[in-house]
Amino acid sequence: MEVWNNDRLSGQIAFIKEIDKLKGVLRQTLIMDGSRRENTAEHSWNIAVFAMLMHEYTESPRPDLNRVIRMLLLHDIVEVDAGDTFAYDTVGYEDKEERELAAANRLFGLLPEDQREEWMGLWREFEDVATPESRYANAIDRLLPLLHNYYTGGNSWVRHGIVRSQVIRRIAPVETIAPALWSFAMELLDRAVKQGILKEDE
Amino acid sequence: MEVWNNDRLSGQIAFIKEIDKLKGVLRQTLIMDGSRRENTAEHSWNIAVFAMLMHEYTESPRPDLNRVIRMLLLHDIVEVDAGDTFAYDTVGYEDKEERELAAANRLFGLLPEDQREEWMGLWREFEDVATPESRYANAIDRLLPLLHNYYTGGNSWVRHGIVRSQVIRRIAPVETIAPALWSFAMELLDRAVKQGILKEDE
Repeated sequence: MEVWNNDRLSGQIAFIKEIDKLKGVLRQTLIMDGSRRENTAEHSWNIAVFAMLMHEYTESPRPDLNRVIRMLLLHDIVEVDAGDTFAYDTVGYEDKEERELAAANRLFGLLPEDQREEWMGLWREFEDVATPESRYANAIDRLLPLLHNYYTGGNSWVRHGIVRSQVIRRIAPVETIAPALWSFAMELLDRAVKQGILKEDE
Repeated sequence: MEVWNNDRLSGQIAFIKEIDKLKGVLRQTLIMDGSRRENTAEHSWNIAVFAMLMHEYTESPRPDLNRVIRMLLLHDIVEVDAGDTFAYDTVGYEDKEERELAAANRLFGLLPEDQREEWMGLWREFEDVATPESRYANAIDRLLPLLHNYYTGGNSWVRHGIVRSQVIRRIAPVETIAPALWSFAMELLDRAVKQGILKEDE
């Protein structure tokens, strides 16, 4: 860690340098022109804007959008160490929690103590899915990949032979949090099945 | 534009699809491992987190961080049409305003009217640099590339033969907004000059 005259700042600069690696963590989704896989840094921007865009559709208790945005900007930082775990990868999910906690401790551990507590708190809140903010953040984090798959010819649905009911289970939380978005998602899945880019259940 | 059962949503989905192109807009900066150029979507995430990280160093009148974050998430969306203009490119800056206004009208024009007004307003506020929020947002948007250049062997400083005073002029707004960050930047530039990755003025 490079040391600067300002102690607090030394840790914070080390942190921003470290999380730059998120730009090299690749997800299963393609960017929407289909040309390459999306990285987690881009996704983090994308999902924060998507949260702003879709917030009007949330039902009471309305999540505090500012808190949601901050949570989403930080929610995937642990992937610097833990990598991206594919949504339908049951094996990867077995030790996901453990790997991500170790990553959170190391990465947020670079920050000054007060900031570390606050930021770890936001990350934990996202993971625990127990507040209106984290429920909304998680729901749209599951919704956005549908758009990516839909607009890139099915991509990971096709490659992994995903069927409609698997996607529906995955995005189930959307239904109560934002019914209008749920209707939209069902419409999108209908079209995807009709286009042959998502398999119907047998 | 693909039409969905929900009219408002049709425009909003068209918007999210359109701004996905920001992932293909390349900046002059390299990502910090030096392996490739950074794109504007990644940068937008990076700068929003950087704003969170550095907010404690702002002086009174303290900018509202929530507004800063939203502004930064949207500030470069116009680059989908207008491309990235290099900070030291005087020719590119001649018609930058015009190009970006046309882009803003087209892109935010995809949104429902109330949302369009709000989001265009945030973008204009960033461009006008007249509020504490936009002054802070602009200042750190100028500061972050110093870190990128510093940690990638000078990169665009070297390629374009930039000298120390040019960088200092570029980041001048940081001095009044966050004096501690200004001191840090001066320390960084000293080290960069000593390492031979930034030219001293003649």
